[in-house]
Amino acid sequence: MGNHHSQERLDYLPGKKRFIYQRRDIFSFSMDAVLLAKFTKVPKEHGRMVDLCTGNGAIPLLLSLRTKAKIDAVEIQETLYELARKSVVYNRLEEQIHVIHQNILELNGEVQWGSYDVVTCNPPYFAVTSLHSKNNNEKVSYARHEIACTLEDVLRISSRLVKQTGRIALVHRPERLAEIFSLMKKYRLEPKRIQFVHPKRQREANMVLVEGVRGGKSGLKTLPPFFVYGEGHDYTEEFKAHYEGW
Amino acid sequence: MGNHHSQERLDYLPGKKRFIYQRRDIFSFSMDAVLLAKFTKVPKEHGRMVDLCTGNGAIPLLLSLRTKAKIDAVEIQETLYELARKSVVYNRLEEQIHVIHQNILELNGEVQWGSYDVVTCNPPYFAVTSLHSKNNNEKVSYARHEIACTLEDVLRISSRLVKQTGRIALVHRPERLAEIFSLMKKYRLEPKRIQFVHPKRQREANMVLVEGVRGGKSGLKTLPPFFVYGEGHDYTEEFKAHYEGW
Repeated sequence: MGNHHSQERLDYLPGKKRFIYQRRDIFSFSMDAVLLAKFTKVPKEHGRMVDLCTGNGAIPLLLSLRTKAKIDAVEIQETLYELARKSVVYNRLEEQIHVIHQNILELNGEVQWGSYDVVTCNPPYFAVTSLHSKNNNEKVSYARHEIACTLEDVLRISSRLVKQTGRIALVHRPERLAEIFSLMKKYRLEPKRIQFVHPKRQREANMVLVEGVRGGKSGLKTLPPFFVYGEGHDYTEEFKAHYEGW
Repeated sequence: MGNHHSQERLDYLPGKKRFIYQRRDIFSFSMDAVLLAKFTKVPKEHGRMVDLCTGNGAIPLLLSLRTKAKIDAVEIQETLYELARKSVVYNRLEEQIHVIHQNILELNGEVQWGSYDVVTCNPPYFAVTSLHSKNNNEKVSYARHEIACTLEDVLRISSRLVKQTGRIALVHRPERLAEIFSLMKKYRLEPKRIQFVHPKRQREANMVLVEGVRGGKSGLKTLPPFFVYGEGHDYTEEFKAHYEGW
């Protein structure tokens, strides 16, 4: 297996304007993170954002291409936190992105409650009680399963972090959309925009992007969907332009 | 304006296998009804279905092409009830479709509570308090606005009409999806399948089809969407095949 550093590599993020440190053995950024970074409405220069469950930091790294707002990024796992920190330094974004090594259930003085314009999150997708067999690799499991925090934790905490009329944006599995809406309403986050991602034109959606506004009026927009692959294993032209256009 | 009969006409439903009486001045079937009749999973021969807010009966008339199940159809407005009755007779479907002239809030012995395999409904879309200006024509308003019944009424009554593990299927505006899910859960109707209809490839959805199962397990499928129009005013080939294929 080699030591940690032999597993580590520096990759491009889509668009090739940001670099990201990855550990193939434990965590690489996903398409989900990239689409969320693009779906999210970003605040103006003096705004503030926070990304929960940031992993190796793909979302804040990409968001920095779209906004000058300050971005906090929270990660519970030390190895991923360190990768995110290294990427921030490598891209010279220390002034804009602040990576915090913390459990989101125990956030303290490093964040300011009720102060953020936007909260983003690409949380673990699978309930621990679900039929999905847990990956034996513990680090992967944290990112995929609701071990350290549940969907309800994420939404409750997001609701406390945003300012009144602030936005939250997350990416999740469409299977859980009814639960997502129900929990959003519970924490006063009104669903405002959704967008589905289908692997192919005639397949069911396997990803959904969701935006809510704290204390917003009801009225949901369903954006045109994405179809990732065409007939073969290549991205559709339309998807490629969206995914790589930064 | 002429008398009622001069406004009445006999039209084809899509697929040209069923005729329907319409009154252009007060009510014509909509694309929404046709798509719902196709989206709905139908029971086997000895099953029972009921269509609420049936209007001039487009949904049961089309469903009869897909199932031998008995279908009850409820309409509050006398003129529409009469059109539906006439269409049933014209298509010689009196043995299969039973049209009931009743307010769904006052359903009595003509329906059997907890007995239906499937409930369908294309309800009024707009809350009376909404900004949508009410159409001055009272008959149109009943079909478009929640005057005689609200979305919550429809879901509460549907939940009482279906048997345990029975299905409900409705068509509505995507703007209200979060509210639909929330009310479905309130009345033990678990959202199981949704499908969006976009007027064009790059436009927001303007219609959503929703299926729930009474007492079902959570887990929602998002079907491939429809795009109605191509570049011009014609249906896309794909949509045309679906819409007219009966």
